[in-house]
Amino acid sequence: MKQDLNNLTQGILFTDMYQLTMAQLYFKAGLHEQRAHFDHFFRHYPDYGSHQAGYCISAGLEWLLDWMEEAHFDDETLHYLAQEKDPKGNKVFQDDFLDYLRREGNFKKITVKAVAEGRVVHPQVPLTMVEGPLAMAQILETPLLNIINFQTLIATKSSRIRHSCGSRLLMEFGLRRAHGMGGNQGARAALIGGCDYTSNVGLSYALGLPPKGTHSHAMVQTWMAMGKTELEAFQAYAELYPDNCLLLVDTIDSLNSGVPNAIKVFKDLQAKGYRPIGVRIDSGDLAYLSVQVAKMLDEAGFPNTCIVLSNDLDEITIAQIDEQIRDEATRFNMDPEKIIKRLTYGVGTRLITSDGQSALGGVYKLVALERDGKWVPAMKFSNSISKMINPAHKTAWRIYDERGLATADLIGLADEHPEENEELVLHHPIEKDVYRVLPKAKISRIENILETVWQDGRRTRPAPSLEEMRANRQRDLASLDPGVLRMRNPHIYHVSLTDKLLKTKLDLIDKFRKGLNS
Amino acid sequence: MKQDLNNLTQGILFTDMYQLTMAQLYFKAGLHEQRAHFDHFFRHYPDYGSHQAGYCISAGLEWLLDWMEEAHFDDETLHYLAQEKDPKGNKVFQDDFLDYLRREGNFKKITVKAVAEGRVVHPQVPLTMVEGPLAMAQILETPLLNIINFQTLIATKSSRIRHSCGSRLLMEFGLRRAHGMGGNQGARAALIGGCDYTSNVGLSYALGLPPKGTHSHAMVQTWMAMGKTELEAFQAYAELYPDNCLLLVDTIDSLNSGVPNAIKVFKDLQAKGYRPIGVRIDSGDLAYLSVQVAKMLDEAGFPNTCIVLSNDLDEITIAQIDEQIRDEATRFNMDPEKIIKRLTYGVGTRLITSDGQSALGGVYKLVALERDGKWVPAMKFSNSISKMINPAHKTAWRIYDERGLATADLIGLADEHPEENEELVLHHPIEKDVYRVLPKAKISRIENILETVWQDGRRTRPAPSLEEMRANRQRDLASLDPGVLRMRNPHIYHVSLTDKLLKTKLDLIDKFRKGLNS
Repeated sequence: MKQDLNNLTQGILFTDMYQLTMAQLYFKAGLHEQRAHFDHFFRHYPDYGSHQAGYCISAGLEWLLDWMEEAHFDDETLHYLAQEKDPKGNKVFQDDFLDYLRREGNFKKITVKAVAEGRVVHPQVPLTMVEGPLAMAQILETPLLNIINFQTLIATKSSRIRHSCGSRLLMEFGLRRAHGMGGNQGARAALIGGCDYTSNVGLSYALGLPPKGTHSHAMVQTWMAMGKTELEAFQAYAELYPDNCLLLVDTIDSLNSGVPNAIKVFKDLQAKGYRPIGVRIDSGDLAYLSVQVAKMLDEAGFPNTCIVLSNDLDEITIAQIDEQIRDEATRFNMDPEKIIKRLTYGVGTRLITSDGQSALGGVYKLVALERDGKWVPAMKFSNSISKMINPAHKTAWRIYDERGLATADLIGLADEHPEENEELVLHHPIEKDVYRVLPKAKISRIENILETVWQDGRRTRPAPSLEEMRANRQRDLASLDPGVLRMRNPHIYHVSLTDKLLKTKLDLIDKFRKGLNS
Repeated sequence: MKQDLNNLTQGILFTDMYQLTMAQLYFKAGLHEQRAHFDHFFRHYPDYGSHQAGYCISAGLEWLLDWMEEAHFDDETLHYLAQEKDPKGNKVFQDDFLDYLRREGNFKKITVKAVAEGRVVHPQVPLTMVEGPLAMAQILETPLLNIINFQTLIATKSSRIRHSCGSRLLMEFGLRRAHGMGGNQGARAALIGGCDYTSNVGLSYALGLPPKGTHSHAMVQTWMAMGKTELEAFQAYAELYPDNCLLLVDTIDSLNSGVPNAIKVFKDLQAKGYRPIGVRIDSGDLAYLSVQVAKMLDEAGFPNTCIVLSNDLDEITIAQIDEQIRDEATRFNMDPEKIIKRLTYGVGTRLITSDGQSALGGVYKLVALERDGKWVPAMKFSNSISKMINPAHKTAWRIYDERGLATADLIGLADEHPEENEELVLHHPIEKDVYRVLPKAKISRIENILETVWQDGRRTRPAPSLEEMRANRQRDLASLDPGVLRMRNPHIYHVSLTDKLLKTKLDLIDKFRKGLNS
């Protein structure tokens, strides 16, 4: 796709056709400026098959707000819409509607409330709430879901991998296996979720980070095809990058060729006063090789060089490598903890595609419409009660217990004030008689987690830095019960409804059932 | 991300850091203009867990060529590279290298040979071969892999879903669950692979197709929240789109509300001389509901309206829905084949993310370097012989048997002429003594499947149309043994090496093993 098509394919028409045909219907019915409230939420944590997430990390919001600042119906996009024909050859989009889009086809009258990027989020609780004229709030559905669903998916995966890595260096290496240009959004989300750096050059510069990398097999192959050796390739690399010498040792054979050659080069570097960085292993049994390579590096006098591991890693493999090293190292008279500490990770495919669960099923549902200055709840029914939405103009709070840990998220009506109650009743989202009562004394804090981030066509505050988003994540993870962080079968965090919201919901269901049977 | 960062994040720096540091090393070693040959291939067909692909559909090439036409090192990108510092604060990229990139940092000296988009491709066989100056061929690795791996993955999934759909209408609806901006590339690949249309508006216009869609639950909810009914919502929709009236019937209850209301609207439309299109079902047991809905529509006098199904569909679910309808329809006195024929599919998440196998592990390997006007094979060794590459400057042919069916792909040296042989010896890629002999009489055609598509900084021919790519796919699928098309445990298509290539490979392995043991 040529760059001159970017406005067409990445701007306001980065949406589904039905958003536009519905918007025209609202316009024709005089409902297009009716204030609407849409909730964006997901129904389930990612389930990767053999392991499951117990929390998600919100990401993508600021990317969406950047998009909203620029996306609008301009001459070019309107020109395309004006040419769209129905099966009989009549214009699909009529002139009065296109004129409206030309005047009002932007996000200036939209208000976005959202959970900040990097924060922990849970199912059913809105990550994003959009209020504004029905037509433009409708058109926003697809880009909002696209941008926030995917980045939240990847930030969550990245956070899990970070959890397995502890404080060790973690790099995102997945651009070659990413879903096209989504590789940029994925790398950003990976950085929010826990990766220290990415190999993606353009994205790094856009975020003000240095891009990271080592070298590839092709470099060693080149020297060999030119009649030279792996050692000579390493020497050339070390000469050019003496302060950043990290050598990929598995082009030929890690233990019999790569590491011995790397050690020779490291000795030369050391003699010249440089500090070699380490080696990278990209194939084979990474745990076994780590032990052997660490032993060789130690014996050669380089106990402080790092060992970078890559090749289909994820949160489970990394944890298993540590485990295997703990089992195996002592057999080779090595201290496993010392080996584990020097490991560094380059994670590619399984992070950037969220292997095992490649989509977050976030949805965007109309929950209220303003009529005569009052919010009227809107319901989406279903044959399955668990799939019914939580209707009404509302918000959400996080409840912290007396230890300061997050004990539940509470969804309620926007005009409720749970902090004024003597006790909190936390209702199960669908089962009327299942609830928990929290006396005030057991509550250390009640926090509204949705802040207004967009109003009057712009952000309400400057975009937070990557560091702030990462700090959000660290703070929120620290306030979770450790059971929620488990890699498999995590403890289920409570998401509850207030009394009033549950009543609103059940009343609507009741009314609907009576209507259906009458 | 703001659009003014597009050049930075989507242009020449849409690559991995190590490509640039290696390119600088080649430059410093005087190897940057050395002609190199890289092969791009994948090692395995997608395995979706409970089902597996027996072929892939090549896609992404023309997107890559568009990118290559524009991507180059300009002032902005060079400015960023010039500021990059190593851990000691020294410049990573030196001025002479940056000057070289300013002059030669484009793809004018690169030649690309490739399998045309839409064609069937198999493991080990190069989809793309890149020849040209080592430095720029190296930098091309990441964008090439990113663009072609992902689109091939999605075109393959789409082709499988098309196979389950037969000739029924198939629409791509996945933008909201796609991996960010990769949704555009995924939609394009889905169209090449077998989808008729996509809901993605901008991408449709860029490709010259009409975007497609129905309406969402929000429309019906809006009418209800305004104190009106589902019927009134449908009526408003039908009034605006009388020639394109396709109604989503499951906002409340498909059988008890949605379909009866749709039928009322269809009768009104019919009375006014319009032909209603059909209904869409987005939840519940889609097979059971299809039967019931078809029955209701038939009884109401609308046997020719379609039934659009959506909700987590893929090739397996679609086949199972057909199967269930065949089992169940007669119990309701319905002809299953008539029901099946009127079904139409909207496929989202599972297509656009290639659910179950979210990456194609395509790799880009140096296989030869030119020295003194001759191509010298380059090898990448491995502890596992199956992971060793096929070295040397080469090409690939497709061999058609006497029935005109493709019987094998044959990889050989570029200067071989298999069509001149009295018989063809097809060697197993790694096992020396496993081979098949095909006498000339059993061969109807030998086709070189890699054509030169890029030379001297431009395409060698105009970009093919979407229709041409789709015709490629249909032609190639028709020439496959039906067993290869099976959804589960497909028959394995033969990929073979010529005598000369196998010898070249085994000689290199031998030489290397001797070198290692000496």
